[in-house]
Amino acid sequence: MTNKISKRKIALSELPSGEKLSLKVIEVDGSFEGPHCYIQASVHGAEHQGNAVIYRLLEYLENNPIIGKITILPMANPQAINTKIGTYTFGRFNPNTGDNWNRLYFDFTKSSTEVVEFAKSHLQSDEKDICKEYKKLLKELILSQKAKHIEYGPNTNGLVNLTLQELATDSDYVLDLHTGPKATRYLYVPEYLEQRSDDLHFPFRLIIPNEFGSAMDEATFMPWVNLQSTFKELGRDFHIPFESYTVELGSEEIIDLEEASHDLLYILNYLHHRGIIEEAPELPRESEKLKCKLSDYKTYYAPRGALYHYNISPGSKFKKGDILATGINFENLFRDEPVKFEVKALADGILINHYPSSSVPSGAELLQVMQEYYS
Amino acid sequence: MTNKISKRKIALSELPSGEKLSLKVIEVDGSFEGPHCYIQASVHGAEHQGNAVIYRLLEYLENNPIIGKITILPMANPQAINTKIGTYTFGRFNPNTGDNWNRLYFDFTKSSTEVVEFAKSHLQSDEKDICKEYKKLLKELILSQKAKHIEYGPNTNGLVNLTLQELATDSDYVLDLHTGPKATRYLYVPEYLEQRSDDLHFPFRLIIPNEFGSAMDEATFMPWVNLQSTFKELGRDFHIPFESYTVELGSEEIIDLEEASHDLLYILNYLHHRGIIEEAPELPRESEKLKCKLSDYKTYYAPRGALYHYNISPGSKFKKGDILATGINFENLFRDEPVKFEVKALADGILINHYPSSSVPSGAELLQVMQEYYS
Amino acid sequence: MTNKISKRKIALSELPSGEKLSLKVIEVDGSFEGPHCYIQASVHGAEHQGNAVIYRLLEYLENNPIIGKITILPMANPQAINTKIGTYTFGRFNPNTGDNWNRLYFDFTKSSTEVVEFAKSHLQSDEKDICKEYKKLLKELILSQKAKHIEYGPNTNGLVNLTLQELATDSDYVLDLHTGPKATRYLYVPEYLEQRSDDLHFPFRLIIPNEFGSAMDEATFMPWVNLQSTFKELGRDFHIPFESYTVELGSEEIIDLEEASHDLLYILNYLHHRGIIEEAPELPRESEKLKCKLSDYKTYYAPRGALYHYNISPGSKFKKGDILATGINFENLFRDEPVKFEVKALADGILINHYPSSSVPSGAELLQVMQEYYS
Amino acid sequence: MTNKISKRKIALSELPSGEKLSLKVIEVDGSFEGPHCYIQASVHGAEHQGNAVIYRLLEYLENNPIIGKITILPMANPQAINTKIGTYTFGRFNPNTGDNWNRLYFDFTKSSTEVVEFAKSHLQSDEKDICKEYKKLLKELILSQKAKHIEYGPNTNGLVNLTLQELATDSDYVLDLHTGPKATRYLYVPEYLEQRSDDLHFPFRLIIPNEFGSAMDEATFMPWVNLQSTFKELGRDFHIPFESYTVELGSEEIIDLEEASHDLLYILNYLHHRGIIEEAPELPRESEKLKCKLSDYKTYYAPRGALYHYNISPGSKFKKGDILATGINFENLFRDEPVKFEVKALADGILINHYPSSSVPSGAELLQVMQEYYS
Repeated sequence: MTNKISKRKIALSELPSGEKLSLKVIEVDGSFEGPHCYIQASVHGAEHQGNAVIYRLLEYLENNPIIGKITILPMANPQAINTKIGTYTFGRFNPNTGDNWNRLYFDFTKSSTEVVEFAKSHLQSDEKDICKEYKKLLKELILSQKAKHIEYGPNTNGLVNLTLQELATDSDYVLDLHTGPKATRYLYVPEYLEQRSDDLHFPFRLIIPNEFGSAMDEATFMPWVNLQSTFKELGRDFHIPFESYTVELGSEEIIDLEEASHDLLYILNYLHHRGIIEEAPELPRESEKLKCKLSDYKTYYAPRGALYHYNISPGSKFKKGDILATGINFENLFRDEPVKFEVKALADGILINHYPSSSVPSGAELLQVMQEYYS
Repeated sequence: MTNKISKRKIALSELPSGEKLSLKVIEVDGSFEGPHCYIQASVHGAEHQGNAVIYRLLEYLENNPIIGKITILPMANPQAINTKIGTYTFGRFNPNTGDNWNRLYFDFTKSSTEVVEFAKSHLQSDEKDICKEYKKLLKELILSQKAKHIEYGPNTNGLVNLTLQELATDSDYVLDLHTGPKATRYLYVPEYLEQRSDDLHFPFRLIIPNEFGSAMDEATFMPWVNLQSTFKELGRDFHIPFESYTVELGSEEIIDLEEASHDLLYILNYLHHRGIIEEAPELPRESEKLKCKLSDYKTYYAPRGALYHYNISPGSKFKKGDILATGINFENLFRDEPVKFEVKALADGILINHYPSSSVPSGAELLQVMQEYYS
Repeated sequence: MTNKISKRKIALSELPSGEKLSLKVIEVDGSFEGPHCYIQASVHGAEHQGNAVIYRLLEYLENNPIIGKITILPMANPQAINTKIGTYTFGRFNPNTGDNWNRLYFDFTKSSTEVVEFAKSHLQSDEKDICKEYKKLLKELILSQKAKHIEYGPNTNGLVNLTLQELATDSDYVLDLHTGPKATRYLYVPEYLEQRSDDLHFPFRLIIPNEFGSAMDEATFMPWVNLQSTFKELGRDFHIPFESYTVELGSEEIIDLEEASHDLLYILNYLHHRGIIEEAPELPRESEKLKCKLSDYKTYYAPRGALYHYNISPGSKFKKGDILATGINFENLFRDEPVKFEVKALADGILINHYPSSSVPSGAELLQVMQEYYS
Repeated sequence: MTNKISKRKIALSELPSGEKLSLKVIEVDGSFEGPHCYIQASVHGAEHQGNAVIYRLLEYLENNPIIGKITILPMANPQAINTKIGTYTFGRFNPNTGDNWNRLYFDFTKSSTEVVEFAKSHLQSDEKDICKEYKKLLKELILSQKAKHIEYGPNTNGLVNLTLQELATDSDYVLDLHTGPKATRYLYVPEYLEQRSDDLHFPFRLIIPNEFGSAMDEATFMPWVNLQSTFKELGRDFHIPFESYTVELGSEEIIDLEEASHDLLYILNYLHHRGIIEEAPELPRESEKLKCKLSDYKTYYAPRGALYHYNISPGSKFKKGDILATGINFENLFRDEPVKFEVKALADGILINHYPSSSVPSGAELLQVMQEYYS
């Protein structure tokens, strides 16, 4: 009794030299009906660790039967992954237009008459039917959006996103695997999932509003948030069954297969709690889980153009006034200023990530920190 | 009786090596009081022709007295101008964050209580006083925005924009000089200026809504549009004296000092009609002026990765079904498809600009056209 | 009686996302035995016009029987062609190592004992046999070089070059199609072919020494030059039948299918004179053919960081003291220097190409000119 | 009794926006005459750690008197340091021409008649006089080279190099501070200094031939090697007093001020052994020093385009057959190949550095290793 693993390619784009780049879709079906989890990695082209975790997950799935279904998209943005300049990957945004690949998803249910119609006609339906039927509606809406999107040609901005949204439509749980620049491991969690997110044992979590900000997590949960509020206006209390998280797996540009085995445990534990995996994995002793609101997630911008020494590591707590980074600017020798200067904490916090190079122009995103965090 | 020309630098950012980049502000004051025109060039770093026009304007201003004031910012975004990769300029967006430099301006008057207060207290004032006082308020609001902006360091995204907005606050007319990739000359004109824009004799114009879209033109006219609608709610009809245009001066990456002399005539003619320059310049015989709404400004995306021959030039009219571009894809030899394919017009229109290279990945912005144009 | 056209792919490299890039080899065989011409385009990834010419050549070859064989490699360096940064192509050098793609060919016959052995054993052979047998030796030497090259993995630096050298080994004539940045049309011609090059009717030609400088033309003709000098030492006068040219087809980043038809006439005329095409094409009235030695091909480096107006066009003659370019540097306002400055000709000459952008850092290759030219 | 520290700037280049970039020269003179050591950092723009060491050295020199002189050039290539694309530094080569910044130095003493003349006229001089006079000759030769170099404008390729060579001419010891991509600490040592290099206590060292390869170390020691061989031909045995090393201080893109304190000890120890610093620093317990010839320094090229896990760290020894890296290629799913593959050692060795990203196109420099090493 094993899983059925099937795979297919979806042609996505064509290089100037004529070769095609494709999405690689892996579908794992268990022998029993059950929930559907959708997992993708590296929509930002430099954020590789999710693929290592997917590799570990595939190893696991070869021998461990699941209940329900898992759809897996490794290397979900081949164009971004292949945008190498020098030895690094220029994968955060479309190199033609500058648009952040994770800010190009579509919001097609906001103020949608179709959603209102749907809610009206399902006021009395049970939740299971609503789920099933609503997913069908979402698929229709996406396909209609896609038809419009390609009317004047296959606009790169949004095409990969629409395709990924389409693939995720049928799912109950979405995990979008990312990394930071130099970063610790953390989650983006919508407000309505703050409690449920406890099953994903990553140490830090940013609580984001139930609003559309163009990212994959929002693009997949907002149709359900919108349905909920439409039902509410019609007098029905609707519990959102759907979950979507952005999972940040450390630093960009690197994979580590050993850490991936560890990351996998957290993912498997989540899948176990959602009924897709029977056996609970043996987790390491739990660390504290710390949260803050997105509005308390602060960016320190480089005060000077300089070489920066990072005084503390991502994942570390600090106090107001602590030295977070030390800059060296030899031009200061010619300005009667000391070569060295310090960037100090404006408030207590936790360092989540820092700029991936020590060479920083003034005004760049030097550090990102959680302030006003709580557990 | 000549103009007083003064200049100053505003330090803007610091390179990793420690050197500073600055804005170069040139202020030209006539001997008589009068209106104030603000002109900037190359906020997008590859769009150089505006600087050639500014050079010609400075030549003119050395010998021709003006009425009022002209503030001039050549090379208004030095960081973008210096972002050379290979021999070209990667100047459209912040290379760290991907944000389009002309989509980072601030909207600080929308739903602003200060603006409502201002309107209430100036319900009976005459328009001249309103203008004078409102500019003071705008300056205050920008400075308060700026203080907030740099709280955690001088965030590059927005710092140059806020500084330019601040410099333009005191002006009556704003000209933001840009270029397209490979392009004809054209204007972006807000709806409320559709008639008045006739004094800027460029052949093509896109009529944009009176709404905020984060660009310089909108950032400078929206405070006046918002004031107008606030007054309207309070029962006063307010005529907006302020004007702001984005002027597209042909193709990127190139300056041409002879064409700049010609471009200057159009600018001088505008300044003449606004009372800043006494003598009317001798214009070339007027060509037709064609307009379309922004919603009828369409982008054709490359249907294939290929080498493209551009069949018609920017500024040319075409009919539905005309061949706009011809692609060559040798990979087709291995797919039983012809090497050559054509991109045909979906509707009548005018080609405004095309991609600056023949080597195009699928989905890139191949062509931009005006449809449903009118004169 | 038509040509036999066959095609095949040679896998060359693999992208980080796993997709493969391949060489596309097109072999056109006439019904009669005859000479073999090898043509490749865009080893530098931004130099596209050669592909347009190849497209026109393929059209021609569908209907016009040849004598002998033509091997055609459009888009001969897919990795370089696909290295798009922003909208331009960063195709001149390996973005990982910086090595110029046209300086990575191999010299495997210099001081080669195999060549000496070959010459000794063919001292009495007739030229036709020598050609035939020598090509076999070259192939062996390349394959042995290739085996060595990939011992520690398929080193990108040189792999495409060795593969192209291998494909060209069997040929009698090699045309390597390039372009300049903003350029006129011109040839690189080895000294020993100065007279024979007249059959390629391009207007300008640089006469390069019979030496190895790592480019494709040299890589293919040097084995014959080395054979000749080895024979000479052994007392035999050997006439080199082999020819190899670098053909520069105007400016980079653009194809023009109409100009390609014109370029094709020159190529067809050459093929006609070499016996591969029977009918002589009707050429436009011949323009003057001007030459200079490579040592008289001079580069003017930008004296200042500035925006440059190019006063004359590639292909134009100029006199000592003429203004070649005009720079604008607004920083000069703060240095008591005039904003405008001029780059004047140090000697009479012809402008061959200039930097492709007006925005130039000091010290970049601003202009390239032929001095001491002759006809 | 303290050192005299003076500083000056040498303007080097000008940005397109008109601002200048300069060399920052720091000269530290002790109270007593003595040897002269020249130290520079980050000629490759992403190699920052040398600047952190220089910062530590300047701290030291404020309080510790030296004998002789130290000339220090932090950030010796500002153009390269500022070439940021995205968040990383594209600093290895000139982004216009592709030329490696550390392969652009000049060899002006090879077969130089001036050197022969010098040797003849100093056949009987004592070594101290020879040194003093030869440095004068070198300076003259460089200045004459520089005059020639800028005849057609300040060619960026070589200008910074010539300027650095000029500054180093007067020195007895040269330390050129670099880093690898992801690397351990190691030295490049010319054959004739193999023994003397023991005073620089870095653990690994590559022994390079006494030949010119266009790098700074070679550019500074070859004039002495050439002098030695000229003397030899004239019958005099000349001991080369001059020393020059390339010092590789770990990985690129990062500075660490704590590791810099440790690196400084090694530099101070060297300066102590050369008589510039009186007191010997307290070194950590010495590790083994391992060497290999440059010809035994091998590069493994990525066999596939893939994501790579690096199985061992720079500085580690490995045995033939050990797994050095593990690749993941999901495209393999569609080729009946396993997703995972391994790169195994072809011979025993030590890993010196690896590619700085896990995302690697086929044929890139994946690993560099010392084989046939000895102590």
